[in-house]
Amino acid sequence: MPAAGADARASQLGTLARVRHQLLASDRTGRLLDAAASAAESLDEDSDDACLVRIARREWEKARRVPADLRAELTRRASLAEHAWVGARRSSDFAALLPHLEQNVELRRRYAECFAGFEQFERPYDALLDDFEPGMATAEMAQLLGELREGVAELVAAVGRSTRDVDDACLRGSFPVEGQRRLVEGILERLPLPAAGWRLDPTAHPFASAISTTDIRLTTSYGEGYLGAALWSTIHEAGHGLYESGMAPELRRTPLCRPPSLGLHESQSRLWENWVGRGRPFLSWLHPRLVEAFPEPLDGVDAATLHRAAHVIEPSLIRIHADEVTYNLHIALRFELELEIFEGDLRLSDLPDAWNARTSEYLGLEVPDNARGVLQDVHWSAGSFGYFPTYSLGNVMAAQIWQAVRADLPGLDGQLAAGEFEPLFERLRARLYRHGGKRMPRDTFERAAGARLSVKPYLRYLRGVAAEVYGVGA
Amino acid sequence: MPAAGADARASQLGTLARVRHQLLASDRTGRLLDAAASAAESLDEDSDDACLVRIARREWEKARRVPADLRAELTRRASLAEHAWVGARRSSDFAALLPHLEQNVELRRRYAECFAGFEQFERPYDALLDDFEPGMATAEMAQLLGELREGVAELVAAVGRSTRDVDDACLRGSFPVEGQRRLVEGILERLPLPAAGWRLDPTAHPFASAISTTDIRLTTSYGEGYLGAALWSTIHEAGHGLYESGMAPELRRTPLCRPPSLGLHESQSRLWENWVGRGRPFLSWLHPRLVEAFPEPLDGVDAATLHRAAHVIEPSLIRIHADEVTYNLHIALRFELELEIFEGDLRLSDLPDAWNARTSEYLGLEVPDNARGVLQDVHWSAGSFGYFPTYSLGNVMAAQIWQAVRADLPGLDGQLAAGEFEPLFERLRARLYRHGGKRMPRDTFERAAGARLSVKPYLRYLRGVAAEVYGVGA
Repeated sequence: MPAAGADARASQLGTLARVRHQLLASDRTGRLLDAAASAAESLDEDSDDACLVRIARREWEKARRVPADLRAELTRRASLAEHAWVGARRSSDFAALLPHLEQNVELRRRYAECFAGFEQFERPYDALLDDFEPGMATAEMAQLLGELREGVAELVAAVGRSTRDVDDACLRGSFPVEGQRRLVEGILERLPLPAAGWRLDPTAHPFASAISTTDIRLTTSYGEGYLGAALWSTIHEAGHGLYESGMAPELRRTPLCRPPSLGLHESQSRLWENWVGRGRPFLSWLHPRLVEAFPEPLDGVDAATLHRAAHVIEPSLIRIHADEVTYNLHIALRFELELEIFEGDLRLSDLPDAWNARTSEYLGLEVPDNARGVLQDVHWSAGSFGYFPTYSLGNVMAAQIWQAVRADLPGLDGQLAAGEFEPLFERLRARLYRHGGKRMPRDTFERAAGARLSVKPYLRYLRGVAAEVYGVGA
Repeated sequence: MPAAGADARASQLGTLARVRHQLLASDRTGRLLDAAASAAESLDEDSDDACLVRIARREWEKARRVPADLRAELTRRASLAEHAWVGARRSSDFAALLPHLEQNVELRRRYAECFAGFEQFERPYDALLDDFEPGMATAEMAQLLGELREGVAELVAAVGRSTRDVDDACLRGSFPVEGQRRLVEGILERLPLPAAGWRLDPTAHPFASAISTTDIRLTTSYGEGYLGAALWSTIHEAGHGLYESGMAPELRRTPLCRPPSLGLHESQSRLWENWVGRGRPFLSWLHPRLVEAFPEPLDGVDAATLHRAAHVIEPSLIRIHADEVTYNLHIALRFELELEIFEGDLRLSDLPDAWNARTSEYLGLEVPDNARGVLQDVHWSAGSFGYFPTYSLGNVMAAQIWQAVRADLPGLDGQLAAGEFEPLFERLRARLYRHGGKRMPRDTFERAAGARLSVKPYLRYLRGVAAEVYGVGA
C-alpha cells in the first residue's frame, strides 16, 4: 500500500467491521436464530442444522455485547497501528509504536469489559483468548503453556550439553529460487489438495487463505541461501489448506465451514510440517527429489543427514525462524507478557525491558535491538492479543491427533515413504476436517484425538526427536 | 483464481451485492435521506451537503426499484459468465459462452423493466446506460456516436488514400521490460500524483483503481517488442488516477468522492494519454529521456518521427490495440450491436455473424476467429451493457475540456515541453476534478468545458492530427 493510503484504509476497514457487526448483532438476526432454534428442536443435536444454530447463536450473543462504535474503532486503530509498526520496526523505534499500542490495549480492555458475566469468563484475558480459541480459559492455557515451557526448557538444556554436532549445513548454500519453486510445487501437486483448486505465490511472510474449499491460496517465501525456509513453510501452509479443503461440502456457505479455532487450525499446519514433513518416511521419499532438484549442493547428502538437518535445536532471536522445539519458548514469553499487560502488572513503556529480560532467561540470548526483539511481530500492533498462545496449543493438539491417526493407519510410514498422502488425509478428514466448525474446539479436538488435551504426548514426541538426533536421554 | 473456485466466488460476490443493495435500498436509508433533505433546505444548492442529498437520493430511488434477489443474481451470473468467457476465448468457442450471455441479457432485461416510468427513461437500454452515464439517454448517445462514426469513417478513408508512409517502426524492436518500467515510473514521478500515494504494477490488461484520493493503484502491460503499449497505457491510467486524486478533501468518504460517470472518467485518461501524451510538446520533453533509456533502438530517431509514430492510423481487429481514431469504430460497432440486442432485433446466436459483418463494413477487415472477434472483450460476459459507448463519449468530452483548459493556459505548450504538469493539473482540478460527483454528468461536463456536448471539436482535433501527419485535407 502506498504510505499515504494508511488513514483511508483504516477508516474503510473500520466501516466494514461496523457494517458486518451491525448485521450480525441485529435484532433481526436474533429473531431468525429463534425461529431456526424452534425448527431445529426435533433434529439430532449432532446434525448440521442443530450445530449451526448453536454456534451462530453464541457468535450473536458475543456480538450483542459489543457496541458497533467500539467494534469499528478496534479495527480502525489496529489498522493505523499496523502501519505505524512497519515504520517502527524498520527504524527499531519502540517509542514510535508505543502510543498506538497503548490505544490498542485500552480498546481491548474496553472490549473485554463487554463480557462481564458471559459464560465462565473470569478475567479480561478470557474474552480476548475466546476470540481465537473459543471456550478456552486463561487459567487452563497458562497451566498448559507453563508445563510445556518447563519441559521444553529441560530439553533445550539437555541438548545444549549434548556432544553431538548436529547442523543443517546441507540445506545452506545456493538454491536458485526457480528450482525451489518447482520443488515445492511438485510436493503440493502430490498432496491431496483439491484439483484445480489451489495456487502458490511468493510473499514476504508466508500465509494460507481459503476463499472456499475449492480455492486455496498458499504463499511461501524463498531464501536463496537456505532451502529449509521455503520447503517447510510451504508444507506448513499446505496443512492449513488441506484442513480447509477437507470440510464437508454440506457446510459450504455457512459459518460452520471453517476450523473451530486457531489452535486446531495450527495443529494441522504443524502436523503436516513437522510430523509429516520432518519425519523419516517423508524425507526418504523427498530425498531423491531434492537431490535431483539441486544435485550440486546436495551431492553426497543422505536421507539421515537430511533428517538431522530438519531437527536442529538451537535458541534464536526471531520467532518465525525458530526450530520446532525452541519455538514454544518464544510463545511462552509472548503469552506471559500479554497476560501481564492485561492483568495490570506490566506497563507498556516497560515492555521492551521485560521482553529482553525474558529472552535472556528463556533463550539465553541478548536482544541487540527492538527490531529483533519486541518489534519483530505484527500481532500486538494489529490488536491481536490472545493469538500467540494458539501457536503452541496447535503443537500440543497436533501430537495427540497424530497419535490417533497413527493408530488408525498401521501402514502410514510405508505410505508416506511412497509419497502416498491420501490415506492420512482421509483419516484426518474423517476425524477432524469434515466437521468444520460444527462444534466448540474442545469437543472437536476430543473427538479427533480420542483423548483429553494434554501436553505430555507432545513433550514425549519432542524428547524422542532429541534422543534420536542429539542422543540425549529420553 | 484457481478454476475450481469460480462457483464459490460467484456466490460470494452475489452475497456482497445483495448486502450492499439491502443497505442502500432500505427504509432506514430513506428516512435518513428525508431528514438530511430537511437539514439541507437552507443550504446553497451548490454546497457539498445539498449535492450529497440529491445524488444519494437518486441512487436510493434507483435501488428501491430493484429486488435484492435480482441484484444478487445479476452479480452472481456475471461472475460465472466471466469465468466461462476466459475458457471460451481461449478456445475461440462462442457456443460455450452463449448460454451465459443469454442469462446475462435476460437478467439485464428484467433489470431494465424495473425502471418503467423512472425519469425520462423510454427504452430498456436507457436504464443500462444510466448506470454508467447517469442522465444520458439512448437517443442522444446514438446521435452522438452516429455523427462520430461518419466523421471518423471519412477520415479513415482519406488517410487510406494518403501517399505518405507513416509508421511506428521506431517504437518496435527490443525494449527490455526493466528499462520500460524505469521509463514509465520516471514519467509518473513527474506527474502531479499524490506524494507517497500511488504505485505501479504489471498486469495483463491495464487498469487504474483508486482506494482513496491518496492511494492510487496503476497497472500497465509491458510488451518487449513494442514500447508504445506500456508508454501510453501508463499515461492513460495515470489520467484516471489524477482525476481521482484531485477530488476536494471535503468529499472524502462520501458517495461524491468519485467521477460522476464513466464518460467523464475516460475523458481524463484520454486527455492525458492522447492530448498530452501524444502531443508535440510532451513528446519533445520525452524524446531525450526515451533515447537515454533505449539508446540503441532509438538511435537517430528524432522527435518528429516519434510524433508520427504516435499517430499511426490503421484499422485493426483488436479494440484495445486500436489507434486513437479507428478506436471509435470499434465502439460504434459494439454500441450498435448491444442496442440491437436490447431492442430485440438481434438474436444472441446471430451475434458472431453480425459482429463479423460489421467489422468488415466499418474496419474493412475479415475476422479470422471469434477470439479475435466477438469474444475479444470481457464486458458483455461481465454483464456490462451500456459501458462501451462511454469510451467514445470520453474522447468527445476530452476534446472539449482540452479546448477549455488551453484557453485558460496560454503557456501550456511551453510548460508541457518543460515537463511541467502542475499548471494543467491545477486547471483541470479547478474545472473538473475537485467537484467529484457533486453534480450529474452533463452539468459537471458543461461547467468543466464551458460548452454543450458536441462531437465537432473532437472531429476537428482528429482531422487536424490526420492533416499534420498524413497530409490529408483538414
